[in-house]
Amino acid sequence: MTSIRLHLPGDPTDRSYDIVCGNGLLAGVGDLLGRSGARRAFVVVDAAVAGTHAAVVAEALTKAGIEHTVFPVPSGEASKSLDMVGRLWDEMARLALDRTTHVVAVGGGVIGDLAGFAAASFARGLPVWQVATTLVAQVDSAIGGKTGINLAGGKNLVGAFWQPRGVVADIDTLATLPTREFTSGLAEVVKYGMILDAEFFGWLEAHVEGILAREPADVAHAVHRSAALKAEVVERDERETSGLRAALNYGHTFGHAYETAAGYGSLLHGEAVAIGMARAARLARLLGRVSPELVGRQDSLLLRLGLPTSPPETAGLADDQLLAIMARDKKSLGGRLRFVLPDRVGHVDLVDGIDPDLVRQALHSV
Amino acid sequence: MTSIRLHLPGDPTDRSYDIVCGNGLLAGVGDLLGRSGARRAFVVVDAAVAGTHAAVVAEALTKAGIEHTVFPVPSGEASKSLDMVGRLWDEMARLALDRTTHVVAVGGGVIGDLAGFAAASFARGLPVWQVATTLVAQVDSAIGGKTGINLAGGKNLVGAFWQPRGVVADIDTLATLPTREFTSGLAEVVKYGMILDAEFFGWLEAHVEGILAREPADVAHAVHRSAALKAEVVERDERETSGLRAALNYGHTFGHAYETAAGYGSLLHGEAVAIGMARAARLARLLGRVSPELVGRQDSLLLRLGLPTSPPETAGLADDQLLAIMARDKKSLGGRLRFVLPDRVGHVDLVDGIDPDLVRQALHSV
Repeated sequence: MTSIRLHLPGDPTDRSYDIVCGNGLLAGVGDLLGRSGARRAFVVVDAAVAGTHAAVVAEALTKAGIEHTVFPVPSGEASKSLDMVGRLWDEMARLALDRTTHVVAVGGGVIGDLAGFAAASFARGLPVWQVATTLVAQVDSAIGGKTGINLAGGKNLVGAFWQPRGVVADIDTLATLPTREFTSGLAEVVKYGMILDAEFFGWLEAHVEGILAREPADVAHAVHRSAALKAEVVERDERETSGLRAALNYGHTFGHAYETAAGYGSLLHGEAVAIGMARAARLARLLGRVSPELVGRQDSLLLRLGLPTSPPETAGLADDQLLAIMARDKKSLGGRLRFVLPDRVGHVDLVDGIDPDLVRQALHSV
Repeated sequence: MTSIRLHLPGDPTDRSYDIVCGNGLLAGVGDLLGRSGARRAFVVVDAAVAGTHAAVVAEALTKAGIEHTVFPVPSGEASKSLDMVGRLWDEMARLALDRTTHVVAVGGGVIGDLAGFAAASFARGLPVWQVATTLVAQVDSAIGGKTGINLAGGKNLVGAFWQPRGVVADIDTLATLPTREFTSGLAEVVKYGMILDAEFFGWLEAHVEGILAREPADVAHAVHRSAALKAEVVERDERETSGLRAALNYGHTFGHAYETAAGYGSLLHGEAVAIGMARAARLARLLGRVSPELVGRQDSLLLRLGLPTSPPETAGLADDQLLAIMARDKKSLGGRLRFVLPDRVGHVDLVDGIDPDLVRQALHSV
């Protein structure tokens, strides 16, 4: 078991927390909450893991003497909706939960974002724990306090910055993750290498086989290194004010547009991010920031890991629609197009005011 | 014009702001936002003041060269709903607003709480200005960053702490406020005297006639002193963690229960708070904390100002229902009943674990 401390300034209480990575951690969630003073918990779980991972967590809470209610949520991006958060809030009101109740999210990014926002806004803020059971949640979404839901008009348009009390990344849960889910999470792992750590990018290139075979040591290293990089960025720019945290959105402006245009759920988040990174690298090439070799090297790693670099032809997405969604992106500024773009492996910049024609070219460039 | 600075710790940016009180301030809102760097605004207005106060604000924004959209919201507590905040979010998405857009709330507590929560949660946080045009907003709800909406299960159950960039209290707007609205706001003014400032309580007793006649000097003093007291409390306990800010909830545990049980909108917030303070004082008497004289002195001031001390007989509220709502209150702790109670004029304490039978007695005590 390894523990990464995410340091945050806090007033009047310290908001720093631990990201715990390792094996067999689900059974320890009860003790973890107990040590934090929890007496009551509201456990929001992905219906797909209700009978497995969430049952282990619930048993651990019972053993620790923590009264709790389990609320299962249907799997999939469609649950990150106003309707679903409204149902959570109504249930929390019915149970008369107060600020002493701890919310526990058990699942992937959808559950963490949804439960995190419900916790952030019910009674103006309940403590929340992120028990991440997917790769994308363990390396990205469970860390850093971004919570939210989707609107018809765009992904994550409504939400809050709400840091968890702790993050639990039990590597064992990844062994049973469906292949498409596991692969999707690898897109964010590749992202960390490309934006921050050329050495880690090289390590990934050298360990594709081990990762795909889910060799425990390789998976553990990929998760730990990614989580540590994410924590470092969040520490230095918690609320995305200095531009540093924006680097984490590499591939996401294109990616969100594909996800939104294709309809939530038809592309997994990581698949959209992989396509987005491939498109962003092409845009960087069109701007003369990177060589064709960099584009090829990234494509190659993504493809070897089983990730796409272009949207499915059947998606039939119109360029105008994609451009319109990108102009509405939270990362856009006053309507101008803004992208996170690499200049070498391991480094990106936030680039402003990009010509829409180049963006259109990047959508189709091979 | 007077200005009260509300100091807050900030990282990485200073979150302190000014509460500006005075005459003719609406016409200056454009310059105020302009000096803060705003180029675009989303103006959420109470439909009742859309043609008057909000039109002055809109003209001021135009003069200052700030592009803006006005969104009118029906008057009344029913607008503090999930449905209405959903409509605001959808409109904000349609307009492709981003974090550089400033939200401006023009109206009373309902508009401020609703627009404040929409601002707090859209794109995980847009700056918001509170332009308060009712007494209750100028002395209380616009100051301190509490935002939120109601659920069927209780008032303000969903929301965020989200401090405004500034608060504008234009005393002129109170001249045309309907009598019932103005009177309702006086309940919060009396509250400040009772919880924090015996001298101010005495001043109110001596100036009932001037206040009811809306003498500008008397109204200005009542607003300024109340706003200053509120700001002082918020500075010292922004997120209600030390117990100090909880003092502001004097009368509100009973009050919220009456509001919820009667159905939002049949009792105005201040009316419910006045009844709540009268009931809380009786509970304090039953506990031996205060003399019958204190109860009588507070009753007398409330009644002279035109405020109620008992719910309307026609309301037919069941004690069990009121008790159940109070047990769900955010100020309750693990289901135990918790009240803010005076021990003298100018001082209150947070009292825990109160016998429900005494609470029932306080509901009916004359």
